[in-house]
Amino acid sequence: MTPVEPLLGRLPHLAYGGDYNAEQWPEEVWREDVRLMREAGVNLATVGVFAWSVLQPRPGDFEFGWLDRLLDLLHDGGIGVDLATATASPPPWLTHQHSEVLPVAEDGSRLWPGSRQHYCPSSPVYREAAARLVEALASRYAGHPSLVLWHAGNEYACHVPACWCDVSAEAFRDWLRRRYSTIEALNDAWGTTFWSQRYSDWAEVLPPRRAPTFRNPTQELDFRRFSSDELLRCFELEREALGRLSPGVPVTTNFMGFFAPLDYWRWAQREDVVSNDAYPDPSDPLSPMRAAMTGDLMRSLGRGRPEQTSSRVNWRQRNVAKAPGQMRLWSLQAVARGADGILFFQWRQSRAGAEKFHSAMVPHGPPEASPPWREVVRLGADLRRLDAVCGSRVRADVAVLFDWESWWALELPAKPSSDLRLMDQVEACYAPLYRANVTVDFVPPSADLSGYRLAVVPNLYLVRDEDAERLRRFVAGGGTLVLSFFSGIVDESDHVRLGGYPAPFADLLGLRVDDFHPLAAGERVTLSFRDGNTGEGELWSELITARGADVLATFEGGDLDGRPAVTRSAFGQGAAYYVGTRPDQASMGRLLAAAAAEAGVEPAALVPAGVEAVRRHTTGGTLLFLLNQGAGATEVSVAAGGVDLLTGEAVPEGTWSLPGRGVAIVRLEGASPG
Amino acid sequence: MTPVEPLLGRLPHLAYGGDYNAEQWPEEVWREDVRLMREAGVNLATVGVFAWSVLQPRPGDFEFGWLDRLLDLLHDGGIGVDLATATASPPPWLTHQHSEVLPVAEDGSRLWPGSRQHYCPSSPVYREAAARLVEALASRYAGHPSLVLWHAGNEYACHVPACWCDVSAEAFRDWLRRRYSTIEALNDAWGTTFWSQRYSDWAEVLPPRRAPTFRNPTQELDFRRFSSDELLRCFELEREALGRLSPGVPVTTNFMGFFAPLDYWRWAQREDVVSNDAYPDPSDPLSPMRAAMTGDLMRSLGRGRPEQTSSRVNWRQRNVAKAPGQMRLWSLQAVARGADGILFFQWRQSRAGAEKFHSAMVPHGPPEASPPWREVVRLGADLRRLDAVCGSRVRADVAVLFDWESWWALELPAKPSSDLRLMDQVEACYAPLYRANVTVDFVPPSADLSGYRLAVVPNLYLVRDEDAERLRRFVAGGGTLVLSFFSGIVDESDHVRLGGYPAPFADLLGLRVDDFHPLAAGERVTLSFRDGNTGEGELWSELITARGADVLATFEGGDLDGRPAVTRSAFGQGAAYYVGTRPDQASMGRLLAAAAAEAGVEPAALVPAGVEAVRRHTTGGTLLFLLNQGAGATEVSVAAGGVDLLTGEAVPEGTWSLPGRGVAIVRLEGASPG
Amino acid sequence: MTPVEPLLGRLPHLAYGGDYNAEQWPEEVWREDVRLMREAGVNLATVGVFAWSVLQPRPGDFEFGWLDRLLDLLHDGGIGVDLATATASPPPWLTHQHSEVLPVAEDGSRLWPGSRQHYCPSSPVYREAAARLVEALASRYAGHPSLVLWHAGNEYACHVPACWCDVSAEAFRDWLRRRYSTIEALNDAWGTTFWSQRYSDWAEVLPPRRAPTFRNPTQELDFRRFSSDELLRCFELEREALGRLSPGVPVTTNFMGFFAPLDYWRWAQREDVVSNDAYPDPSDPLSPMRAAMTGDLMRSLGRGRPEQTSSRVNWRQRNVAKAPGQMRLWSLQAVARGADGILFFQWRQSRAGAEKFHSAMVPHGPPEASPPWREVVRLGADLRRLDAVCGSRVRADVAVLFDWESWWALELPAKPSSDLRLMDQVEACYAPLYRANVTVDFVPPSADLSGYRLAVVPNLYLVRDEDAERLRRFVAGGGTLVLSFFSGIVDESDHVRLGGYPAPFADLLGLRVDDFHPLAAGERVTLSFRDGNTGEGELWSELITARGADVLATFEGGDLDGRPAVTRSAFGQGAAYYVGTRPDQASMGRLLAAAAAEAGVEPAALVPAGVEAVRRHTTGGTLLFLLNQGAGATEVSVAAGGVDLLTGEAVPEGTWSLPGRGVAIVRLEGASPG
Repeated sequence: MTPVEPLLGRLPHLAYGGDYNAEQWPEEVWREDVRLMREAGVNLATVGVFAWSVLQPRPGDFEFGWLDRLLDLLHDGGIGVDLATATASPPPWLTHQHSEVLPVAEDGSRLWPGSRQHYCPSSPVYREAAARLVEALASRYAGHPSLVLWHAGNEYACHVPACWCDVSAEAFRDWLRRRYSTIEALNDAWGTTFWSQRYSDWAEVLPPRRAPTFRNPTQELDFRRFSSDELLRCFELEREALGRLSPGVPVTTNFMGFFAPLDYWRWAQREDVVSNDAYPDPSDPLSPMRAAMTGDLMRSLGRGRPEQTSSRVNWRQRNVAKAPGQMRLWSLQAVARGADGILFFQWRQSRAGAEKFHSAMVPHGPPEASPPWREVVRLGADLRRLDAVCGSRVRADVAVLFDWESWWALELPAKPSSDLRLMDQVEACYAPLYRANVTVDFVPPSADLSGYRLAVVPNLYLVRDEDAERLRRFVAGGGTLVLSFFSGIVDESDHVRLGGYPAPFADLLGLRVDDFHPLAAGERVTLSFRDGNTGEGELWSELITARGADVLATFEGGDLDGRPAVTRSAFGQGAAYYVGTRPDQASMGRLLAAAAAEAGVEPAALVPAGVEAVRRHTTGGTLLFLLNQGAGATEVSVAAGGVDLLTGEAVPEGTWSLPGRGVAIVRLEGASPG
Repeated sequence: MTPVEPLLGRLPHLAYGGDYNAEQWPEEVWREDVRLMREAGVNLATVGVFAWSVLQPRPGDFEFGWLDRLLDLLHDGGIGVDLATATASPPPWLTHQHSEVLPVAEDGSRLWPGSRQHYCPSSPVYREAAARLVEALASRYAGHPSLVLWHAGNEYACHVPACWCDVSAEAFRDWLRRRYSTIEALNDAWGTTFWSQRYSDWAEVLPPRRAPTFRNPTQELDFRRFSSDELLRCFELEREALGRLSPGVPVTTNFMGFFAPLDYWRWAQREDVVSNDAYPDPSDPLSPMRAAMTGDLMRSLGRGRPEQTSSRVNWRQRNVAKAPGQMRLWSLQAVARGADGILFFQWRQSRAGAEKFHSAMVPHGPPEASPPWREVVRLGADLRRLDAVCGSRVRADVAVLFDWESWWALELPAKPSSDLRLMDQVEACYAPLYRANVTVDFVPPSADLSGYRLAVVPNLYLVRDEDAERLRRFVAGGGTLVLSFFSGIVDESDHVRLGGYPAPFADLLGLRVDDFHPLAAGERVTLSFRDGNTGEGELWSELITARGADVLATFEGGDLDGRPAVTRSAFGQGAAYYVGTRPDQASMGRLLAAAAAEAGVEPAALVPAGVEAVRRHTTGGTLLFLLNQGAGATEVSVAAGGVDLLTGEAVPEGTWSLPGRGVAIVRLEGASPG
Repeated sequence: MTPVEPLLGRLPHLAYGGDYNAEQWPEEVWREDVRLMREAGVNLATVGVFAWSVLQPRPGDFEFGWLDRLLDLLHDGGIGVDLATATASPPPWLTHQHSEVLPVAEDGSRLWPGSRQHYCPSSPVYREAAARLVEALASRYAGHPSLVLWHAGNEYACHVPACWCDVSAEAFRDWLRRRYSTIEALNDAWGTTFWSQRYSDWAEVLPPRRAPTFRNPTQELDFRRFSSDELLRCFELEREALGRLSPGVPVTTNFMGFFAPLDYWRWAQREDVVSNDAYPDPSDPLSPMRAAMTGDLMRSLGRGRPEQTSSRVNWRQRNVAKAPGQMRLWSLQAVARGADGILFFQWRQSRAGAEKFHSAMVPHGPPEASPPWREVVRLGADLRRLDAVCGSRVRADVAVLFDWESWWALELPAKPSSDLRLMDQVEACYAPLYRANVTVDFVPPSADLSGYRLAVVPNLYLVRDEDAERLRRFVAGGGTLVLSFFSGIVDESDHVRLGGYPAPFADLLGLRVDDFHPLAAGERVTLSFRDGNTGEGELWSELITARGADVLATFEGGDLDGRPAVTRSAFGQGAAYYVGTRPDQASMGRLLAAAAAEAGVEPAALVPAGVEAVRRHTTGGTLLFLLNQGAGATEVSVAAGGVDLLTGEAVPEGTWSLPGRGVAIVRLEGASPG
């Protein structure tokens, strides 16, 4: 094993800790907090996320004394600090003096203070006030020895993904002018001959406010692009100030998984560290799969540190607590999939405010009586045994293509079926791979696919010319592609690609889709596979004419009886599978297994159902994570044997028992270095 | 057979075609379009429906060159033109310069541009701008040889049935002043002693805006009347300009079936041709019945041409495609029930905008690969064989009374049961008649009923004195009446008619309703019929005291045990049936069959279930339409034999097979001329 | 028996009558009304509730002539008058001249006239106009011989429980200044360090308007307190004027049962007579229990007179009629539980307006044909036989603690489970006691409990220090307490009480709750009782550590297997039961029976299931009400025998039959005077 490469230069281990909203507590509690942090093995505290009104109680009046004392105390306790820029929730004086900072909803109703994130992303007043605060913080704390990381803003777009006010309208027009240059180009892109929407002047252009019926879809799509960019601009203004005044300290903000409003591909490029908020619902049996999927996305976006809860959130209808061991299990799952740190919201559970029933590392009652606290302490000890993980990498032979712009365009209204939700199709592809322990990366449509054997493309409704061409080249060069229905339908302006669906892929797939036949609610269609299996399709069917493709399955019964449902087409040196419906999970599993076998893709380990397996590779070897997502023990075996990092004990070559919700992290013997 | 009487003077055949939004396409596509139109037998294209922003790109600047070229091209191709006035969607410059044109919702929120129909119906600015455009179009194209028909506006009230802005408030006051003359009369009509609503001045009167709880029902009812009238005034302003500048060319606008916001009885009087948009849902098994019902309404309003789709709309949650043959079947069903033309939305499927996934005659892909296109071509050929249909008439012995004002009043809140929806009761009456192939007309309450044998009156909650009297005279003169519950309850001001429900019909029916007993959700009540049958009632029951009526069925069990549920009363030379609940369909079928038999009403043909039969009569003979709404073939027979217009072949006297979704149009031999 | 103590000094009997909106009818109808009132035994009419626009048709112009004539007529007929101040629905001229009177919703949308109660409770303009009207009425009618009672406003908060306008914002700040004195104190109470909400100035404080996400819970809680107080201030302004100008005449307004917006404990202190609107849903089998519960609350608030309907309301989705006898039964149930009068909405059913289908004492049709009218007449005769009831008292050994502030705080969002609804928990406790005919009082947390044996405290989420201490003292002094889960969690600022849940009760209960485990939707958990019974818990579970308590039941299975679910702890001279879930009703019944037995609590009578029993005590004896809530007759027996006040006949000692929906009011022989 080579020396570890820690996530954060100043931290020698995996990061561990949480949001520490110390301003909610008297200073005497702070000393107890540091003692408990040390007991739990905490080495990183995120400080000041919502402290603006305390840091700057009046417009010209900064109060840093308490923060000085807090950072010194943490430093003395050996706790690194992730210092927040505190800009996520403007203080009352700002919105009182400048009510135009308040965002306006689509229906023209203003959003008022009282919660958080009540600012128009395009507001110059907000941006200037935020910049002044960031500059003051960066100037003062750039050299503080506790400072490990900057946390800019917080959960951008969580509650206010967009603003429809007049200030935003003007900013939208500016953004459109930069995109289109001329009003004629905008008219063409937006297809304004439809419904008499042709603009004669930029001044006539508006955000998609409440309207009598379906709005112009390209107007909506561009407004989604604009809104993601406007918040990114807010982030960048902070990042620029931090880079200028606190050079060398990395900057992050927290993502929120597969979060629709923000194009994280664009955002991740500006992040030094990718952070994620992960709150899988303990009452949902799909949570482990979804958590794995999110972990894979975050790893694909960059190296991450997830935020989570110790037991129970407070914002669902019913907030079920995590089962014993589940917090540890899911934390180590995140590490398995690429996280180099585990951070909680939050360190100490609040007494007051809207999140006081959100569990934290330190509960309302005596910690020693709290099972979650005992698990927090155990996890801290576990993480200290995982220095070998720092800087190791997960590698995948499978790329799942995921695109925010296509997501936005797909889920605009007035489609053949409004039940088309991208995440349903992504999960339909991801879940069988997850169950087979086939590790995947997520990639944007612009990705270089040359490092992958298999590309899975669920429902890529919108595709650019060059990205479609990139997929063709991937297959031509020997790659295997699985493409699902209603892909390649429109260009980046949401204009239909004419000439027969899916126009940019028709020759690659060796077929043409002559009409869409979305299924009625609850309707199922029978699939008859050439290999003798039968299955069911839901949500969608279509009239496919094979023009060279092999037909792997046909629809059975109904108006499409005998017509192709699933096909495979040899193309260049590779092969392209096409799926014209959403098959049941067993059928989809067989189909993806066949494609994976054809592509030469292997699982991370052969283990019983319910055990999740992932590998991280270091320059010195391979770490195999085995995570038992079930509540009962199960027998596993690892071909080569090795050492379990969590126990320090040898792992035998034969079969051994992994307890319910148990984890083994095996440093494999004889595995080839990565 | 006598010479045909075509729908439109300048068209020698049934009209066939669709909306042609040519401005969405480059001119080189236009020539291809004309070629395809000729291939499909198209003879009418609706042009310019949403072309305002292209026709008048800036306030003072009209651009007609492209339209000149388009109309010439169509004329050269032998295609007639239904020229739209293009006023349904104001251009961006108009609402930018005059934001007061934008409508305001009930909650005070403005509706913005971005879709269509974003105008306040009472706006003088909108009306003047629309008038200028109509005058320019009418002046320029009045004499164009392609011009067959004017299409004013489009789908009036589709998205904005009313506006609550201050301009509308002023217009509402004007309308009320004309209706009531004095504020005292308004106070009396609106019952303003209730809840302290007495007005001292006209200026105090407002539209029914968002209020703390139930609003004044007469205020709401008058606002519905006003809103229908205001849009009708918009239509009439266009019609006046067209009549002045383009005399002799008929004018239409498109209705939308049983569409609540507009009183089509009032509208139809101002239409030269009644047009209808018909989009039955292929996934709903009740669609054939509902399409028949709509066809009967449109025929009752005037002579029609339906608009439809070739395969699939895009505005439902899931837009199921039509089955093979279904488009042709439902088109010929419309013809059977009185349509003299078949028009589609739209000719060529859009590339961009909010309707790009709405199927069209010409699809996105190559037409020759599209089954819907092949059906479009086949239907065009079929329609050319049906010149004999032009100008023929459907005759009915049964009138179903239908009234928009009563509909509005019934569905205002705060009723004994808010689940009372008029269309449910209408369908409960219509469906058994439809299944029995008994042809019906819809009539307004002011209709002369002397030509009918049977009148069916579902849930006529509001009735005027003179209309109640008309029904009494109909029965007294020998007619048969079937009246359902909660009828005759209020007058035109929505004031309860005192003296015992249903006051204006109590003597006619020989009974009194002493209390309403609406059923709880899901509750059913047993009906015991004198003829030994039993049945069930849903939704409603009531405490009936027979005062001369024969009791045909009683309620069984519960608090109404043994009390009358269905009665028959001899009155003058006729008879009046009363139904004090909503019986199951089998019971309702038996009841209507008995009433029809008593009235001497005959079905159009005796054919197996699933086969729809309607007759059209010309001066020279009778055309019997047989439509197999099922997917499988079925055996039918026609007493007299004849010739099938679609095949030109003789129809034998005995039994023969009608294929699934097949149609025969039999010119009957030996049938007496109409 | 001692002489009766009538509810209203000027009325010699139980009050009987209803709202009489005479202004809706021509004066010739009034004489008929008085005749019918006398026929029905009516002795009280509430006059003028919505007469403002008739009493004051223009700002400076009062018209009292009609009211003079009406009151004289009623007086001549022997009918007392409850004269309304008529301020519940401002006239059109007021809101036309001063649109700022109109309330504004949370989303900034204004509520307009057209229904009723369209005023901002804090509006000085409204308050002044109301005061002028009240003064005019009081001056004129103070000495009128018919005047028995003043009815101030009407159903305060029914539709507009709060207003978010700028006037309200200023009033809210004033209220907060009085509550907190300094902005620092407000910051502490509201916990404004959370989410950067720290105020630097009073001017920054706002009502909880529409915001991006969860608002500050203490801001919301204080706004609920403020909104209840603002309407109470409206009431008090009227009361002050009435007291000044019409001294000695009692004042009431009508409550609405367990009505969330208003803290009726505070309101009841200012009422001379407590009135209630009671509209149980005849289609809901829980209605008798809920009506009993409401009756008990009203008696606990003060002496009452319920408002009800004769047959059917009009504001539910489906308004099921009352069964024969049900109106009488439920009326006498109200009397049983403390009512000294029965008043209806309304006397004569309206012809027009939003309540015209709300049943009334006099129906639309001929009264003699109306079964409800016949029941009205019968009830009037019954009530005349119940003079002995006047002034008698119901006594209870059981107190159910109920608190509006805790209700408000509990149902704010972002709790462990948002399905926690206080009334569900109250009903879960009340229903078993009701079925056992154990009579209960409702009490506020500040109540002196010394008169009770058993206190039942459902889900008292928020508790003040002194109120928690009061419960401890009650148990220490020998009382028995049953406390359900999620109680004692926060203080009056909605700050969590630290140190282990439920902090103020942990030693009393002998346990600590270490974590909440709310159940997923539909989830059930098994309960294993020490006595061998098993049961089920729903909604909630929690991790309890017994620290001295006896464990009466444990959770079975799942993560809490074997952990305590229900406990009992001896404390001082009493005992405290704790319930850590919501048990099924049978389990809860057994648990409450055990606690009642321990406390020495007896039922009002031992009668079969479905028969409700309550006692009223006079100085001269005991009246036992037996109410058969079932539709069928049932056998009952009364130990001591007595006389049935309704029939005047002797009630034998043995078993006799009480008919379906029948009532007996037995003056018990040998019962000790109260």
